[in-house]
Amino acid sequence: MKNIPLLLIGCGGVGRQLLQHIVSCRSIHAKQKVHLRVVGICDSKTLLVPSDVFTMELDDAFLIEVCQAKLKGSSLLTLSNSGQHKVFLNSEIMGKIVDIAALLSRSTGLTVIDCSASSDTTGVLTRVVDLGCCVVMANKKPLSSAMEDYEKLLAYPRRIRHESTVGAGLPIISSLNRMLSSGDLVHRIVGSLSGTLGFVMSEVEDGKPFSQVVRSAKNLGYTEPDPRDDLSGMDVARKALILARLLGRHIVLDSIKVESLYPEEMGPSTMSLASFLENGLPLLDKGIQERVEKASSNGNVLRYVCLIDDLRCEVGIQELPKSSPLGRLRGSDNVLEISSRCYNQQPLVIQGAGAGNDTTAAGVLADIFDVQDLFH
Amino acid sequence: MKNIPLLLIGCGGVGRQLLQHIVSCRSIHAKQKVHLRVVGICDSKTLLVPSDVFTMELDDAFLIEVCQAKLKGSSLLTLSNSGQHKVFLNSEIMGKIVDIAALLSRSTGLTVIDCSASSDTTGVLTRVVDLGCCVVMANKKPLSSAMEDYEKLLAYPRRIRHESTVGAGLPIISSLNRMLSSGDLVHRIVGSLSGTLGFVMSEVEDGKPFSQVVRSAKNLGYTEPDPRDDLSGMDVARKALILARLLGRHIVLDSIKVESLYPEEMGPSTMSLASFLENGLPLLDKGIQERVEKASSNGNVLRYVCLIDDLRCEVGIQELPKSSPLGRLRGSDNVLEISSRCYNQQPLVIQGAGAGNDTTAAGVLADIFDVQDLFH
Repeated sequence: MKNIPLLLIGCGGVGRQLLQHIVSCRSIHAKQKVHLRVVGICDSKTLLVPSDVFTMELDDAFLIEVCQAKLKGSSLLTLSNSGQHKVFLNSEIMGKIVDIAALLSRSTGLTVIDCSASSDTTGVLTRVVDLGCCVVMANKKPLSSAMEDYEKLLAYPRRIRHESTVGAGLPIISSLNRMLSSGDLVHRIVGSLSGTLGFVMSEVEDGKPFSQVVRSAKNLGYTEPDPRDDLSGMDVARKALILARLLGRHIVLDSIKVESLYPEEMGPSTMSLASFLENGLPLLDKGIQERVEKASSNGNVLRYVCLIDDLRCEVGIQELPKSSPLGRLRGSDNVLEISSRCYNQQPLVIQGAGAGNDTTAAGVLADIFDVQDLFH
Repeated sequence: MKNIPLLLIGCGGVGRQLLQHIVSCRSIHAKQKVHLRVVGICDSKTLLVPSDVFTMELDDAFLIEVCQAKLKGSSLLTLSNSGQHKVFLNSEIMGKIVDIAALLSRSTGLTVIDCSASSDTTGVLTRVVDLGCCVVMANKKPLSSAMEDYEKLLAYPRRIRHESTVGAGLPIISSLNRMLSSGDLVHRIVGSLSGTLGFVMSEVEDGKPFSQVVRSAKNLGYTEPDPRDDLSGMDVARKALILARLLGRHIVLDSIKVESLYPEEMGPSTMSLASFLENGLPLLDKGIQERVEKASSNGNVLRYVCLIDDLRCEVGIQELPKSSPLGRLRGSDNVLEISSRCYNQQPLVIQGAGAGNDTTAAGVLADIFDVQDLFH
């Protein structure tokens, strides 16, 4: 039985769901002769580790307790006073994680999982990789910041997995990595990688006003608390950057052309959320409606896509044939079309739910399972 | 630099293309610190190995020579008298492969690649896995014969990869394996997994007679030399069996309900190929046309699919909504829809070219690259 130690950074929605998946997959993993041993969990304020990271683990009963506490919005700190675990707080956390990585890398290896949404983890992740450990990420930030950080993180590419940074659990990164390692040449990637914007664009296609569609997306829980975080396109731009870097592009976030669906003067620094929803949004209806109608008169539809080819890496609204995989997309599914030497007449298409804690955590767990091959 | 010894069984179309890919990917693999060292190649009659399998390899110049010879339809035997390599013939071959596996498994490991189309390799592959080596297959036969053989082959599941047995290089097996290892529950798989039958069904949908479509598919090189090998559905049935077994079903080929597109009395044992093409096929036109029209009157189309759910594993013509991913399929692309706990409202869809030596060999090479994580 392989014993793979894991340390989880971030136990919000995805991290919490991951802990549940780990517990519920025990029998599946036992059949494959793998035991995932959780030797640390942290949120932004508290790191909990068993008293001996070499031999002990945070047991399943405790992991379930963590899930329940986090679901209620409690901090890990509330679970820290049982006396069972070592507790590290605030500024101690990152240093302690590096210590654990240094201890375990020499013996059994360690996989550090980043399910946070913070760019503060970049430093600790590069240290951990350097020490011979593996990193699995759902967090896009460390992969979409400075090129220097990216290169440090990817110095040992097989030790880094990050399926759930793009399209949640959809097998996009793993499939692209397979294409690249087999020498296939990727010419063009075009995709709808925001469930929120996919929903918005297919609803406005049906003639509904943009403002109404955004408000109902917010009410359905499809958007971030401030929908401008989706409408700015920056989340899609980070995903585009991750894909472009995977293809070997040495670019940064600032070099991506990003179309925001609201003008600068309606941004969070100048307009409150309430005012944006009530007064700002309706002013955008006419412009979107005109573009929808123009596209429709060409037999096309509008989609908010990322587009990467030999010349471009850009994110924004594109007019696309109604009959293309992207044009046919409805609702909140993600879809990615990859054109390459092997997929030249028709693209390789991967489509499905690209959001949701369950799916995202499943992608993380599949990555954890894949990297275990690196440990003996 | 990791040095991964490879031994290739079968150097027809896919095997030959694989050798070309290996040679042309040298720089890509060097960047990932991997060197693929070919220590053996065999066709049905001849095995060639370097004089020392521990340190030597069949060099790139020789691999290219092999590709050129096989492209011309020559046997490996014609390359055997240079005196540079050890040559093993006919009944010696399988025993010698096991010897090499036994030698290398203790030191560097070995990956044996089966690009043949023979069921005779099953024995050697199970021996090789038993010895601690890895197996990568494009050959469906060993995975679709007796359940006992399947279980022996999959005794160490991480050591077996077989992406290119279903949908050529499309990331179907790797994606399903990821879903399963993350504990996702697959409820239903439905797919069009024959480019030939995909082409046939979308052409008859346009009103062309079945006999004419099959003949032009044959002329385009889409079918086997005898198109009945495609029309029987047995190739799709083998793929369905491989997918069903991946999901944990203990079934055999005979337990799959298979619809043949020609009646038994037109089979190869009672009717010559020429007679089938000229006299047999046209008799089938009316029946297919009536089914197409009936489907069309329901707003549906006919597709030749494999269908696996909790109750069924069957292969044949199904009436499907024109607007579903399968219904929209045109030409020779493969498409697979997977419904699961994570992909419940809409299926995960994977679509693209599912045939061709280039794509199939790329899938094999990606598998070879993936299993190298198991070697240190």
